[in-house]
Amino acid sequence: MTTDDPALPAAALAPAASADAPATPAPATEVEAAGGLRRRRGGRVEHERNRLPIQRPWAQPTLRYAPTEVVSADELESIHDASLRILEEFGMDFLDAEARELLRAAGAQVEAGSQRVRFERAMVLERIRTAPATVLLHARNPERHLTVGGNAIAFGSVASAPNVFDLDGGRRVGNRADYRNLIRLAQSLHIVHFIAGYPVEPIDIHPSIRHLDATYDALTLSDKAIHAYSLGRQRNRDCLEMVRIARGVDEATLEREPSIFTIINSSSPLRLDGPMLQGILEFSSRGQFVVMTPFTLAGAMAPVTLAGAVAQQNAEALAGVVMTQVVRPGAPVAYGGFTSNVDMQSGAPAFGTPEYMRTAMLGGQLARRYGLPYRSSNVSAANSLDAQAAYESVFSLWGAIMGGANFVMHGAGWMEGGLHAGFEKMVLDAELLQMVAAFLDPIVVDEETLALDAIREVGPGGHFFGVAHTQARFRTAFHRPMISDWRNYESWQEAGSPEAAGKAGRIVKELLAAYKPPAIDPAIEEELAAFVARRTAEGGVPTDY
Amino acid sequence: MTTDDPALPAAALAPAASADAPATPAPATEVEAAGGLRRRRGGRVEHERNRLPIQRPWAQPTLRYAPTEVVSADELESIHDASLRILEEFGMDFLDAEARELLRAAGAQVEAGSQRVRFERAMVLERIRTAPATVLLHARNPERHLTVGGNAIAFGSVASAPNVFDLDGGRRVGNRADYRNLIRLAQSLHIVHFIAGYPVEPIDIHPSIRHLDATYDALTLSDKAIHAYSLGRQRNRDCLEMVRIARGVDEATLEREPSIFTIINSSSPLRLDGPMLQGILEFSSRGQFVVMTPFTLAGAMAPVTLAGAVAQQNAEALAGVVMTQVVRPGAPVAYGGFTSNVDMQSGAPAFGTPEYMRTAMLGGQLARRYGLPYRSSNVSAANSLDAQAAYESVFSLWGAIMGGANFVMHGAGWMEGGLHAGFEKMVLDAELLQMVAAFLDPIVVDEETLALDAIREVGPGGHFFGVAHTQARFRTAFHRPMISDWRNYESWQEAGSPEAAGKAGRIVKELLAAYKPPAIDPAIEEELAAFVARRTAEGGVPTDY
Repeated sequence: MTTDDPALPAAALAPAASADAPATPAPATEVEAAGGLRRRRGGRVEHERNRLPIQRPWAQPTLRYAPTEVVSADELESIHDASLRILEEFGMDFLDAEARELLRAAGAQVEAGSQRVRFERAMVLERIRTAPATVLLHARNPERHLTVGGNAIAFGSVASAPNVFDLDGGRRVGNRADYRNLIRLAQSLHIVHFIAGYPVEPIDIHPSIRHLDATYDALTLSDKAIHAYSLGRQRNRDCLEMVRIARGVDEATLEREPSIFTIINSSSPLRLDGPMLQGILEFSSRGQFVVMTPFTLAGAMAPVTLAGAVAQQNAEALAGVVMTQVVRPGAPVAYGGFTSNVDMQSGAPAFGTPEYMRTAMLGGQLARRYGLPYRSSNVSAANSLDAQAAYESVFSLWGAIMGGANFVMHGAGWMEGGLHAGFEKMVLDAELLQMVAAFLDPIVVDEETLALDAIREVGPGGHFFGVAHTQARFRTAFHRPMISDWRNYESWQEAGSPEAAGKAGRIVKELLAAYKPPAIDPAIEEELAAFVARRTAEGGVPTDY
Repeated sequence: MTTDDPALPAAALAPAASADAPATPAPATEVEAAGGLRRRRGGRVEHERNRLPIQRPWAQPTLRYAPTEVVSADELESIHDASLRILEEFGMDFLDAEARELLRAAGAQVEAGSQRVRFERAMVLERIRTAPATVLLHARNPERHLTVGGNAIAFGSVASAPNVFDLDGGRRVGNRADYRNLIRLAQSLHIVHFIAGYPVEPIDIHPSIRHLDATYDALTLSDKAIHAYSLGRQRNRDCLEMVRIARGVDEATLEREPSIFTIINSSSPLRLDGPMLQGILEFSSRGQFVVMTPFTLAGAMAPVTLAGAVAQQNAEALAGVVMTQVVRPGAPVAYGGFTSNVDMQSGAPAFGTPEYMRTAMLGGQLARRYGLPYRSSNVSAANSLDAQAAYESVFSLWGAIMGGANFVMHGAGWMEGGLHAGFEKMVLDAELLQMVAAFLDPIVVDEETLALDAIREVGPGGHFFGVAHTQARFRTAFHRPMISDWRNYESWQEAGSPEAAGKAGRIVKELLAAYKPPAIDPAIEEELAAFVARRTAEGGVPTDY
């Protein structure tokens, strides 16, 4: 070890080295024996020295483990069968005439003078077969393209919160300044792989042109893949044109290469409204990525029993997938699961619950049965960034990851059941997502890692600090946290007893201070701005609100 | 619904009902439509009305899902093989002459004039075969007996912390008053299945008699299964005699029925010290439960590479298991995994990390390979009950549960890498453990739960609040939290913006105020007290400290 090497201090080790044993004076011998290693009491972490937090490099994690199956194969078939019976016998309301006509022409039963559509099971099974198992979602920066499907995982930012929160400013209604800062923060966090929508609603932009300005911001402040809201067909068209410009490709290329996605929520139970159907018509016809997600709160918009709630979720999801494939066979589409439960005492929606975990996993089983990419979420009902916010998020990630999710919406920043986006929560979630990604790193098993030579060298009663096997690897051996505070109690107290929320707040500021917009061809930026100006001059998309 | 029925209010539902959709005015229609249901703004939770928190009834959860395998079968064999090479070629130090003599007589190679013992692989494989796959750990209350092994899971309290913390009193050195209150709290929480040791060290009891008074407290304040520290053979004997008295059984019955357990930590690397070996000699010879747990911090007491750290863990665990079976074939023993990593910048131990999760799962794979019950833990390095404390705990539970753990030490209350026991953390962890238990409840799939009739009845665009299918089930449909706050933001603010730690603190007080000691036969209590008095008069176990 040369003098330039970072030290490998050991002073903080001793206290907890007897985890299971009764409390005895800390055995100092092993620490003393780590002679020659510089001491640094309590182990200051990098970002306290005004350096940016250490992040994992950009990469999509891969699920190498078998997903958890929460029902048997037979039970899965019962749920599948119940869904097909729902579509066959009860049907679903499609609130768009063009969509109904397409479905009728494709063989569905459209009830005369009604919005009700019924699907024979053979039609459902035949149609969903053309949906691709994997989607390559293109970003304007080719290095940020995402594989959605198979074992690949992509994490998105929070989306669609009406309010925003940070420690300094408190909770406030969404606005463009916070919107832009949340995009900057999401861009700065490598583990956030895509911008999942408006992190917060910029309500100070008029609704008729909001999609133009907000999409302009997303495409210039970030180079990651983005989302378009399905709020009428013209908005989808505008956003699609903007990503075409941003990517610098022609229309034919755009329609071969999914370059934007839209979340399609059914209005559960059993209804797809007009704007959502127009979103499918527009995006599926042009080869863009539809993420079909029923939002089925068991006990409210779905049965109180989980099997029934998921049977309904599955019926609605399959109907949406059928719609995409009727519009264009092979159109990219994901199966979204978002079944949670309500507090049956108050009616309040709950997230990250044991029910949520199991339905997230069950949704994954169904998506795999149909060979579709699977979308889940990182959710929490907590109002503040306390232990509840953390445990609900990790429980929902447990459900998503072990459920085999490919596309994790609301990965960073979702609070209060989606009612506010949190700056600090976004950073805290990035810590959680990085931990998940590190958990998914394989344990390498080979002669080097089995380390028999090191074990022989150290021998009974020795220590591994100083051996070459450790020295060669210690810098990168383990996940390094941004937030987790591992200092001993005394050092932590001296530092003012910081808690995770406050540390996240400091990182928010550091990242925003260091933020630099990603490179963009000035001609493209100009073309984007010109498009926004023209469409704004045209009045955007006139609204009645 | 009669007027006596609890209402099923829905007022809090609307705001988040559009989770993925852009923020729009909350659609009030579904809420309004839930007519006839009384409104209760924000959903007060039970314990705010000075009622005890609702808990799941006493029951051991069962892992119905396949455990997660983090390495392939071939890789597992490589680790297994490396462990056997360690025991065969390098050997381990056994710091007790009687133990060495027993091992020598059983065929191990004991190096002359040394503590080093080497084991041929055939001996290891043959000896571990006699260990039982499942242990019935007896408590003094037969309703609290625990199955340890198979798919059964048991959660223990925190153990062995030198310090204690609560919000009112702050952090302080362990003492008997706090020790007793933590036992009371653990007794009050149904999801805490056993007392894992001294929740905090009662240092105001002299070490020579501490095991007597502390065990008396544990056996009278609780009726759950308990632990004895292996700190010299006489202490094990005293504790065993006390559980015999508490159970009211004779010695022959006691030796047929494991009635107490001891954690045996190796002094990694590759050393078993005298008191630990005496613990095995005493407890295994008398049929009591040994939980063999190497504490292998990768990068410090074990190789920096996870495969190597676990190979060493496995060697040490197998050596301990062999020792138990040499003492008495068939003696109950669990395989303990406790491999974590240190912060390589500071040397501080870390817990609930991505490395910890994977080694917890890998330990489970090894335990299953050997057909042994598996012990893991719920750990956190956090100094305060913030988001970090929660996410590290849930990540370690994820590792433990999906790793197939049967016996979860430190399940409730472990903070600061084991350096303090937290009253509030014990309650918060109980919330997490209850959520885990609910997650492990099966999704029932049958005609009733598939709810096709209810879905038909409600139809597209309806709601499920009022239907009979919901009404018949809503009271018990979902897990009910003790701590999680699902109120809307305004109600939550009006209530003073409570955070999880504070809510846990209130529950601590409620449970301690309502605590009643479990029933005990007065004659048994008298006999226990007399035993303690006699052994105290004899000087307990004289100590040199």
